[in-house]
Amino acid sequence: RSGVFPALVAGAALLIDYVLTVAVSVTAGIEAVTSAVPALFPYRVWLCLGAVVIITIANLRGVRESGNIFAAPTYLFVISILGMVAWGVIGTTLGRMEEAPYEPHPPGLEGISLFLLLRAFSAGCTALTGVEAVSDGVPAFKPPEAHNARIVMAWLGVITVAMFLGITYLAYDFGIVPGGNETVVSKIARRVFGGGFLYYEIQAVTMLILLLAANTAFADFPRLSFFLARDRFIPRQFATQGDRLVFSNGIAILAGVACLLVVVFQGDTQQLLPLYAIGVFISFTVSQSGMVRRWLRLREEGWVWRIWFSLVGAVVTGIVLVTLAFTKFTEGAWIVVLLIPSLVVVFLIVHRHYDTVAAQLSLEGMAPPPPLEGTILVLVGDLHRGVVRALQYAQSLSPNAKAVYVETDPERTRRLEERWTKWGMGTPLIVLNSPYRSLLGPLMEYIDQLQRQRGQHHVVTIVLPEFIPAKWWQQLLHNQTALLIKGQLLFHKNVVVTDVPYHLRH
Amino acid sequence: RSGVFPALVAGAALLIDYVLTVAVSVTAGIEAVTSAVPALFPYRVWLCLGAVVIITIANLRGVRESGNIFAAPTYLFVISILGMVAWGVIGTTLGRMEEAPYEPHPPGLEGISLFLLLRAFSAGCTALTGVEAVSDGVPAFKPPEAHNARIVMAWLGVITVAMFLGITYLAYDFGIVPGGNETVVSKIARRVFGGGFLYYEIQAVTMLILLLAANTAFADFPRLSFFLARDRFIPRQFATQGDRLVFSNGIAILAGVACLLVVVFQGDTQQLLPLYAIGVFISFTVSQSGMVRRWLRLREEGWVWRIWFSLVGAVVTGIVLVTLAFTKFTEGAWIVVLLIPSLVVVFLIVHRHYDTVAAQLSLEGMAPPPPLEGTILVLVGDLHRGVVRALQYAQSLSPNAKAVYVETDPERTRRLEERWTKWGMGTPLIVLNSPYRSLLGPLMEYIDQLQRQRGQHHVVTIVLPEFIPAKWWQQLLHNQTALLIKGQLLFHKNVVVTDVPYHLRH
Repeated sequence: RSGVFPALVAGAALLIDYVLTVAVSVTAGIEAVTSAVPALFPYRVWLCLGAVVIITIANLRGVRESGNIFAAPTYLFVISILGMVAWGVIGTTLGRMEEAPYEPHPPGLEGISLFLLLRAFSAGCTALTGVEAVSDGVPAFKPPEAHNARIVMAWLGVITVAMFLGITYLAYDFGIVPGGNETVVSKIARRVFGGGFLYYEIQAVTMLILLLAANTAFADFPRLSFFLARDRFIPRQFATQGDRLVFSNGIAILAGVACLLVVVFQGDTQQLLPLYAIGVFISFTVSQSGMVRRWLRLREEGWVWRIWFSLVGAVVTGIVLVTLAFTKFTEGAWIVVLLIPSLVVVFLIVHRHYDTVAAQLSLEGMAPPPPLEGTILVLVGDLHRGVVRALQYAQSLSPNAKAVYVETDPERTRRLEERWTKWGMGTPLIVLNSPYRSLLGPLMEYIDQLQRQRGQHHVVTIVLPEFIPAKWWQQLLHNQTALLIKGQLLFHKNVVVTDVPYHLRH
Repeated sequence: RSGVFPALVAGAALLIDYVLTVAVSVTAGIEAVTSAVPALFPYRVWLCLGAVVIITIANLRGVRESGNIFAAPTYLFVISILGMVAWGVIGTTLGRMEEAPYEPHPPGLEGISLFLLLRAFSAGCTALTGVEAVSDGVPAFKPPEAHNARIVMAWLGVITVAMFLGITYLAYDFGIVPGGNETVVSKIARRVFGGGFLYYEIQAVTMLILLLAANTAFADFPRLSFFLARDRFIPRQFATQGDRLVFSNGIAILAGVACLLVVVFQGDTQQLLPLYAIGVFISFTVSQSGMVRRWLRLREEGWVWRIWFSLVGAVVTGIVLVTLAFTKFTEGAWIVVLLIPSLVVVFLIVHRHYDTVAAQLSLEGMAPPPPLEGTILVLVGDLHRGVVRALQYAQSLSPNAKAVYVETDPERTRRLEERWTKWGMGTPLIVLNSPYRSLLGPLMEYIDQLQRQRGQHHVVTIVLPEFIPAKWWQQLLHNQTALLIKGQLLFHKNVVVTDVPYHLRH
């Protein structure tokens, strides 16, 4: 259990990272759209929400996250971006495109913005090369897979660095400054391709790769929350699968919180970046620290240098993390900084609750309880078909069932007693006096008195006649007395409340 | 029943008039405040809502609407306004106050605004001179009351006309044009008293008389809705009295809709006036028509000229009403014009529903039903103290009670059956197979099969073990399976669902 606390911190950090990944990837994807079609800019929040809803529905219906979906956009993205970089570099070298002096501007997080794009790309690649693609009958790699996978990873690194350097070089060479409502990639593409078909293709493929990155979090978040729920750190509803065998509660929560972030930050990627950067570096630090623990435990070949490697990684990303948390604290980082300990506290409270419930419900060492006895009371306010049905039901449970009526008007009692001889099914009618016109008061008093007489192994069953209207809105037209009584008696010891429904036809 | 339809139209119109009276009186009262203290203008909506809340709380606690509350503000109002008019007329006549040419401006509803104030005043007077004041031990009139009351009414008319003419004359003489964020009365008072103590006194007393006018609707609306509910045209909840013998549902609805109007119209009296004017003239037309019907029925002395008098009144106010409805249709009158027929339709639908329910529940001509038989099934998912309690309860109802378990994992079934021999209380355990991991499917199938075997006079009771956490938020941490099952079985014929609560201590 010594490892529980760090694991919970890591869990909280990763949950937050997944939510931020969805929010920031979707807003960045929509930013690619509004860069290309500025007329859509005022509707960006709605577009973001629409994108989240579409991804959510796809995941609730159980999209199989196979490599196939990722293949086309990922390949297209590499080709398009590298093509743009190459064309731009050739153009500027040959002097066919206008260069401009680079204007210095205050440092910001635009590097993170580019990083976001490349992370989305690598998420696509990971899905492409991952285990799932193999098990899906698309053996992308000949055995030994691990070796081939390493070669692919190396290539992936080279390609990513090439794209990063290429975009940075072109931004510098064209004198492009971040800002306004257009992304840097859009500005570069516009300069390189001049707003033609290829420009729109770059924007479309950028949007696609970012939305697919958001989609990966829809697999990761429910998976992590399943483990947290299974280990009873979050409500167990997160461990139950929906009809289509997806963790629908996790998906719904992820989508809801991501939508909230989009609305609060008005679909503005720039404002979300400080939070996202914190989330990214937390997950880096957490995973590097995890690797240190792993190598310490396994002690595989070469574990010493591996530990040093991961340790340096953890320390460096940790320093960046702390720096970010301080410098960007007022720009939104405080949300993440406060949220992680709060989530850990919630985890611990939930866990303790489940433990105490299990202890209270345990049969361990319980003496076999003596048999229960019972009284059946039908609460009547009138005499109609629904009440007759309830009386019949009570008699089927016990020949000693009684009916209880709370009197507020002696004249009504007289009329009820008259009809009782004909329709009371032979059930004795007990009339309780209510000096203050209260229904619940005299009833509770009567139950208390009965329970005092009969002792603690006696259960009082209150049978409530209830008619069910044919349409839901008709329910609003009837007194909710039954609900009130159930609410009052729910916390009363040794009392069971039973509704006997009488279904109306229209 | 021939008179039902006009009565419903009148009822709908009056309900709307009461709501509008509250909304417009409160906004006008707060306008008197913001005229005096312009710094409060941005908070006018909050001030209006605060005023509605205070009046609502006072009425929910059961303020006795005696003349006493109305006495001071009403007398103060007459003295202050007539004093201001007199002082203003003297000042302008002696040439001590600056006069200005009256600037013509486009015709509007500012006359209604002044009318609103005088109506509030007369509402105060009515309460002062009314029956309640007499019965309260404040015999304002010596007998014969009716004669004295008539003299008072005549004086009331004279005073009201004097105030109306005085204010209109001063507005004309000072060249005051309606508009801006200041009321006409405030502008006049500022000119007459120059912004000193007397100016603030005028504003305070104006606010008070308007809020008291809003208060009268809080007595009228619940009273009318009580009658509508008693005659089953609106939900019967409006006929039930709260703890303090006030019709709290009517008060709550009135306050809620008035607040909605205040928010939608941003606390702007000018925008509410078209709706209010329509409401006022509807209630005029309705009451004059009602008087015609009354004299036709009673045929008291002088009924012929009384009918003519009321008939002319009804026709004239009716013409004004139709004119207003057309000319102010786009300025908000359409809301009232559409709402009245909609409300009447709702009244009729509700009435028909109550009639059909009564017919369906009637015992008239029902053959005595054969006795019911029953099966008790305890639905178990595990074996703990809560389940043991439910098994005991089921056995107290019937020695033939059985337990039902839906199997999703054979290994869990084996473990359950092992423990069942010790803790199953001798209850037979039926294991239902669930090929698709569904809980409800196999259960429903089993119930259906049982009911087919046993016939239609057999009721199946499903006993659900349920543990009740000590704190409400802990409920969120547990599966809501019980709720789901209850929802599914509520509409199933001949099935009764019973929760057996097991109370956790912490």
